[in-house]
Amino acid sequence: MYVLIVYDIGEKRVNRVLKVCRRYLDWVQNSVLEGEITKTNLETLKSQLKRIIKVEEDSVRIYKLRTENDVNLEILGIDKKQVFDDGII
Amino acid sequence: MYVLIVYDIGEKRVNRVLKVCRRYLDWVQNSVLEGEITKTNLETLKSQLKRIIKVEEDSVRIYKLRTENDVNLEILGIDKKQVFDDGII
Repeated sequence: MYVLIVYDIGEKRVNRVLKVCRRYLDWVQNSVLEGEITKTNLETLKSQLKRIIKVEEDSVRIYKLRTENDVNLEILGIDKKQVFDDGII
Repeated sequence: MYVLIVYDIGEKRVNRVLKVCRRYLDWVQNSVLEGEITKTNLETLKSQLKRIIKVEEDSVRIYKLRTENDVNLEILGIDKKQVFDDGII
């Protein structure tokens, strides 16, 4: 499936959240990552995130799409997307 | 259509971008808005954004979906979404 994650995390925890998300997804913008991910890897990512975040302060929004084709992306200005090859998949 | 907007904007322009986006969409998180929008209103929003942003520095990602049903949203932590009644629609 294709997943878009946006987060709003307390300063102390934000780097850990970014690091965990980058194992599975591509960074596309400040606090935003996206990419193709398996159901199993998404479950792993979610359980890792749950261990880091403070549920009463932080927020992680996970938008799940069947496929990347369900979304039509348009960018105004620059595309900041970075793709790294250190992913698990 | 259903639209999700995430932006990464220079400090001087970020408040104007937020204000314009909030005319058409619901604020859901820092730098993230989403909502149902007509094609015409999206075109208007885009032309307003283009007038504000610096194309060589700022980035606005517009994810367009046919319908809200194409996306399955899961939230970890708190839901910060705010819905205001001061929209144009």
